[in-house]
Amino acid sequence: MRPDGRQPDQLRPVVLERGFAKFAEGSCLIQMGDTHMMVTATVEDRVPPFLKNSGKGWVTAEYGMLPRSGRQRNQRDQQRPNGRSMEIQRLIGRSLRAVVDMEAMGERTITVDCDALRADGGTRTAAITGAYVALYDAMRWMQQQKMINRVLIAEPLAAISVGVYRGIEVLDLNYDEDSSAGTDMNVVMTESGKFVEVQGTAESAPFSAETLGRMLALAKKGILELIALQKEVLEL
Amino acid sequence: MRPDGRQPDQLRPVVLERGFAKFAEGSCLIQMGDTHMMVTATVEDRVPPFLKNSGKGWVTAEYGMLPRSGRQRNQRDQQRPNGRSMEIQRLIGRSLRAVVDMEAMGERTITVDCDALRADGGTRTAAITGAYVALYDAMRWMQQQKMINRVLIAEPLAAISVGVYRGIEVLDLNYDEDSSAGTDMNVVMTESGKFVEVQGTAESAPFSAETLGRMLALAKKGILELIALQKEVLEL
Amino acid sequence: MRPDGRQPDQLRPVVLERGFAKFAEGSCLIQMGDTHMMVTATVEDRVPPFLKNSGKGWVTAEYGMLPRSGRQRNQRDQQRPNGRSMEIQRLIGRSLRAVVDMEAMGERTITVDCDALRADGGTRTAAITGAYVALYDAMRWMQQQKMINRVLIAEPLAAISVGVYRGIEVLDLNYDEDSSAGTDMNVVMTESGKFVEVQGTAESAPFSAETLGRMLALAKKGILELIALQKEVLEL
Amino acid sequence: MRPDGRQPDQLRPVVLERGFAKFAEGSCLIQMGDTHMMVTATVEDRVPPFLKNSGKGWVTAEYGMLPRSGRQRNQRDQQRPNGRSMEIQRLIGRSLRAVVDMEAMGERTITVDCDALRADGGTRTAAITGAYVALYDAMRWMQQQKMINRVLIAEPLAAISVGVYRGIEVLDLNYDEDSSAGTDMNVVMTESGKFVEVQGTAESAPFSAETLGRMLALAKKGILELIALQKEVLEL
Amino acid sequence: MRPDGRQPDQLRPVVLERGFAKFAEGSCLIQMGDTHMMVTATVEDRVPPFLKNSGKGWVTAEYGMLPRSGRQRNQRDQQRPNGRSMEIQRLIGRSLRAVVDMEAMGERTITVDCDALRADGGTRTAAITGAYVALYDAMRWMQQQKMINRVLIAEPLAAISVGVYRGIEVLDLNYDEDSSAGTDMNVVMTESGKFVEVQGTAESAPFSAETLGRMLALAKKGILELIALQKEVLEL
Amino acid sequence: MRPDGRQPDQLRPVVLERGFAKFAEGSCLIQMGDTHMMVTATVEDRVPPFLKNSGKGWVTAEYGMLPRSGRQRNQRDQQRPNGRSMEIQRLIGRSLRAVVDMEAMGERTITVDCDALRADGGTRTAAITGAYVALYDAMRWMQQQKMINRVLIAEPLAAISVGVYRGIEVLDLNYDEDSSAGTDMNVVMTESGKFVEVQGTAESAPFSAETLGRMLALAKKGILELIALQKEVLEL
Repeated sequence: MRPDGRQPDQLRPVVLERGFAKFAEGSCLIQMGDTHMMVTATVEDRVPPFLKNSGKGWVTAEYGMLPRSGRQRNQRDQQRPNGRSMEIQRLIGRSLRAVVDMEAMGERTITVDCDALRADGGTRTAAITGAYVALYDAMRWMQQQKMINRVLIAEPLAAISVGVYRGIEVLDLNYDEDSSAGTDMNVVMTESGKFVEVQGTAESAPFSAETLGRMLALAKKGILELIALQKEVLEL
Repeated sequence: MRPDGRQPDQLRPVVLERGFAKFAEGSCLIQMGDTHMMVTATVEDRVPPFLKNSGKGWVTAEYGMLPRSGRQRNQRDQQRPNGRSMEIQRLIGRSLRAVVDMEAMGERTITVDCDALRADGGTRTAAITGAYVALYDAMRWMQQQKMINRVLIAEPLAAISVGVYRGIEVLDLNYDEDSSAGTDMNVVMTESGKFVEVQGTAESAPFSAETLGRMLALAKKGILELIALQKEVLEL
Repeated sequence: MRPDGRQPDQLRPVVLERGFAKFAEGSCLIQMGDTHMMVTATVEDRVPPFLKNSGKGWVTAEYGMLPRSGRQRNQRDQQRPNGRSMEIQRLIGRSLRAVVDMEAMGERTITVDCDALRADGGTRTAAITGAYVALYDAMRWMQQQKMINRVLIAEPLAAISVGVYRGIEVLDLNYDEDSSAGTDMNVVMTESGKFVEVQGTAESAPFSAETLGRMLALAKKGILELIALQKEVLEL
Repeated sequence: MRPDGRQPDQLRPVVLERGFAKFAEGSCLIQMGDTHMMVTATVEDRVPPFLKNSGKGWVTAEYGMLPRSGRQRNQRDQQRPNGRSMEIQRLIGRSLRAVVDMEAMGERTITVDCDALRADGGTRTAAITGAYVALYDAMRWMQQQKMINRVLIAEPLAAISVGVYRGIEVLDLNYDEDSSAGTDMNVVMTESGKFVEVQGTAESAPFSAETLGRMLALAKKGILELIALQKEVLEL
Repeated sequence: MRPDGRQPDQLRPVVLERGFAKFAEGSCLIQMGDTHMMVTATVEDRVPPFLKNSGKGWVTAEYGMLPRSGRQRNQRDQQRPNGRSMEIQRLIGRSLRAVVDMEAMGERTITVDCDALRADGGTRTAAITGAYVALYDAMRWMQQQKMINRVLIAEPLAAISVGVYRGIEVLDLNYDEDSSAGTDMNVVMTESGKFVEVQGTAESAPFSAETLGRMLALAKKGILELIALQKEVLEL
Repeated sequence: MRPDGRQPDQLRPVVLERGFAKFAEGSCLIQMGDTHMMVTATVEDRVPPFLKNSGKGWVTAEYGMLPRSGRQRNQRDQQRPNGRSMEIQRLIGRSLRAVVDMEAMGERTITVDCDALRADGGTRTAAITGAYVALYDAMRWMQQQKMINRVLIAEPLAAISVGVYRGIEVLDLNYDEDSSAGTDMNVVMTESGKFVEVQGTAESAPFSAETLGRMLALAKKGILELIALQKEVLEL
């Protein structure tokens, strides 16, 4: 029933490649089908103004798409990132901060750059899943540099999209599914099954509480599979 | 227990003033406690480029805060609206479009401007609730002008915030509550109890499925009260 | 003869509402007919770079119009304020500085925000008249906070527009009059009858010295009426 | 008494050089002491959107200062012209439009560019005086091209600054005088003695009606001298 | 003598991967040592305004670096591309246009996007070499679509950097060499040995005609090797 | 054969006017035929961030064209300088830095502003030639101010364009020649005949090594003539 023949609760093939960006403190190329995100984590000795002299650190994210990552060429971001990019990078940053102990980081900023090399739907959730790997490795690098004495992450986290496609709930929508889905939801969840972000949008018709419940269950299944892959590639 | 003495499931005092903006096709000043939003709906004979020659209409929203609407003065938006404003205006626009029959509008755009005169938390949800009133009146104006032959809204809708404050779920957070809430969720729902948007964010600690359920129930109670007020002021 | 039936030397109905903005140090909603300006005065412990370590303070103004304050919707200011807004906010700031003792303010800035909620001509002069009230109250607040030991204003001031409409000089032009006026002049004057700003523009035909004299006399009459109202609402 | 030894009612040495910009339809280099403005008038077959299909023409102005025209280097205008530049170019444009018959121009725009090569006070009034010459020659060019059948200017006009320096009214302030003047006024007037613009500003202390009268008389004297020079250089 | 042990006239290891960007009409990932450029060629049915109704086509390029492609994180381009990026993308565009028959392309634009995934010196010349491959494949795609009847490229072209490092001329400088090179030159050349661009810059000390000659000879050697690789990967 | 009757190896008439900008530390108006560049050198007690506390100085350049310097009116640079301007000002800055001893300057910046009053081709090379004079005088001013103890310039330098016009190599192309030239090259060279910059571009057809050689020889001839003029006007 799905355009690529998947079961409703089936993820696209996932590949996580650690260290894709040679020069970054942490990095990951995540491929979910034809969505390929390059994620890097950069550690810098500075914090935003509101944290000066607080002793605390910060984690932030930026998001972009290469102009020809998708089916159509997009203009490079003019001036500031557009509304969609801003929304996405704020989501990625908030999600990561929810599991990081920033108090113990010292006055440092980790900037996570998420750039789509190939885009076929679900770039923001792929970015979060990949960012966890990049962030973990950046923390290991900080530990080696004696900046911190352990990886300051409370719990693994990953993200996935779910939606209603042709009347049934499906996991991990690709671009074609996403374009015609009546409802679209992005879920960020930790390994213990707690929500970090839940963002559901009725694209055309409002959705019921039952639909919401079924979508959240699908998301949980997918996220736990992704967390297992993250731990494998991180050798945890 | 709440800073202003409300029960956990109690809204702030709500006032809806129709026609606050004399020159607009539809308008509403919505006061929820010390959050005052001025909402106007403007009808124009144009559509965005992607709808040219489609025969369809469009509904969009813009959001702003007057510089001294809150406790601190904010800079006027430089260049483009900032990330937060963009996120909010995209949310308002999507929510309204979910209940409007844009096919029957003809090639017209309704722009809903939501500006905070006074801001004490919950401006985005107040904006949506007030926008429904302004939009309804703009539709009535269009009907009088023979542009359309009925009010093209499928169902009433309103929005409210819920959150976890000092460990318990509360409805309609004001600024003080919002600042210290562990979890914050904005819900947009129709009169029939269907979701248009669900946006939950763990500010500090991830939240459980049970917490999510209790927050959604609170939101539904508040939204139905708001819809009753909308219908009263619209004399429906 | 005038569109709204006023005498040539008659102001529109004026209402001054102190404290309209709950959170600001000083504020005023001024209504002159269908021109409604929300004015707030914000006190901050900073000065522009050229006054650093001078011991002196600063008064500045910003001006805006809500998108649907007028008969047509205006775009929100993109990038920087447009030329007209800049001209107006520079005029408001200069006018207020002419009567404030900035030497005695300490290194503080008072920012006066003037935003049109409803615009029917004469927004810049209404802004100045309202700003005097907001500024006065902000000074009282500073006195209570022991920042200063008296209200640092030399003399009351107000502003009004005058012009030539259908060949005769009229006071306080509304939008319709302003649109067809041959000459338009804005006058800012103190209670003792001295000029702070005189800005006269021949929209179509240059004007004579006699016309100038008659316009200045009308302006003086209107300004003295406005100053009486300011003093009443400020309980002076 | 004046820093450069002039009488209170004496202009700086004035030189008008027609045709300074070889490629422009009309141009003038105006020197008033150490203020040197290069003014060009460009004729183009287009009008702003609000005049499309109206049959009417338009006159507009732009103003700039070369970075090292003055005693300090200024940054090149970033983004849009700054507030001061905008105010000035709006003044120049309005002044010229007051004496041009734009109805008879056809759908053409004359853009007057005024750039300070050397700046020692009074650049905006020098720009207007020089612009009259450039505009006149551009009209002659249009006449040669059979675009119009006469020079479409109702009356000569020029501009000058006056002010109160060390307590007495003076004509044509240079930078040093302007910096310490208590009152500063720019006047644009036609040959028949009518006002096109009157912009007086109390820099420190408000000024009386008598002072205003004396400044206007000085301005008239200076402007008539400038108009005589314009006519001479234009061989009228 | 060179930091990575290469001979003065030796290229870094080169890999050309055709079709790296699945959705683009032509694409190539070029690796020269640790410089990895992703190049895509997008065909669109539009031309810049100056070619409207000319029947001719256009080839243009854009250049960017992912924020963490290099040793330090760079800010994403704000507003417009910075000066260096602009210079580079103009160079790439000019170089490609020199060998393309744009007259025969019809009114179409090929936009070549060159983005550094990893940057270790020589990104602009790698971009040109890779762009040739992407452009060639885009032309083949156009031929299949019957837009053109042959690949409209006159001759193969490639580019390389040369410079003076520790007193001797070297080919294909990496980042370390480039940072300390006294002279830096980028050469774009065709298979027949003709120059398309020669850009030599004395970073610290001016260079002699003899040095120029030796650098050009080295460049020619490297470019011919690169062209051989291009032809191999394009199966020509 | 050339449009203005010059020999292939003949410069346009050159005039160098020192001190054209009265207020600048050094300045020069350079006229090469109908290309007139106003160049000023400004000395300021600041350096860019990367030189803070290094003890070294900096030389930088900015380039602009007055809107009506050429045959068509150009828009004033919006936002940032456009790509062409950026390329040019980077070239001018690099060229001057190649002959200045910045180590001995102290933490000071010399900003060279090059603005075209009249533009008829070759503005960038005229700017460099004129900038040498302005820079030299600014150094003399610094010496008088005891900031430095000698003029910190290693060697005179000048710049010229060469190209292939109607099949033969010509020196100092004017606008008409430049527009139809097949190859265009800008050369910056010192008095001892060493290259500072060589930028050759095949506008339509790639060029041979022989053509390159002939163009470089022409450039050398022209540059030595310009350096002789610089030394004469600088009284060296």
